[in-house]
Amino acid sequence: MVAELSTSPVRSRSADACEVPETDEARVALVRRRLVSEGAALDLADTFRVLGDPTRVRILDALSQRELCVCDLSAVVGLSESAVSHQLRILRDRRLVRPRRSGRMVYYAIDDHHIMDLFAQGRRHVEENAAPGPAAARQGD
Amino acid sequence: MVAELSTSPVRSRSADACEVPETDEARVALVRRRLVSEGAALDLADTFRVLGDPTRVRILDALSQRELCVCDLSAVVGLSESAVSHQLRILRDRRLVRPRRSGRMVYYAIDDHHIMDLFAQGRRHVEENAAPGPAAARQGD
Repeated sequence: MVAELSTSPVRSRSADACEVPETDEARVALVRRRLVSEGAALDLADTFRVLGDPTRVRILDALSQRELCVCDLSAVVGLSESAVSHQLRILRDRRLVRPRRSGRMVYYAIDDHHIMDLFAQGRRHVEENAAPGPAAARQGD
Repeated sequence: MVAELSTSPVRSRSADACEVPETDEARVALVRRRLVSEGAALDLADTFRVLGDPTRVRILDALSQRELCVCDLSAVVGLSESAVSHQLRILRDRRLVRPRRSGRMVYYAIDDHHIMDLFAQGRRHVEENAAPGPAAARQGD
């Protein structure tokens, strides 16, 4: 019994962990060297957190189609103009959208192509996972 | 005085709103037609919310470089293996990462190329906004 215990000392480890815990020091050093800084990780997490709201998602989704003024956005998402303005301020603070004044109109657009692409990729990820049979389709990956 | 009031009735509107509120019905209908569904907006917001945590950002950033086991990830981000496992479970529940068993090892990777791209775009957006002089550089946009 002692022998059996000593040959499988790590069987009780978490199912997602390796059976033999061993750190590859060279690999770890390589990844650490290119790891995002702590400040950038905080900024990035803040950006994602601001995106983590269904109303803001719908506003960004509308703006990913074309620039829109607050009146049009309000009609698109079915919220009051003041509610839309409030969400736009939050998005603007994180540089996710930006306004453009044109005469008496103010149009909002997605801030840059990174946010545009980020949003499009997120939408595709969600749509593919929601599509019928994604689990089966993924087996052959 | 009455004339003055009637010629500028909307001057008190929010600074980010148009001076003349007017909804372009055709434009609104077009955007609404292609707007993300309510269910997909919730899913997408959930996905972004899970990404909105600096520890998970660092784990994903490490995995965006290469697949890693829990032991290596733990050394990379400087957290216990159980803390890393906990975060991986959250990421896995939202299909942001997936495990691959290879003999006695379990490697984690970013779930699909959409998440890989999404994360890369987010990182670039944050880095460009943090770089010296982005405000000045953006003036000419």
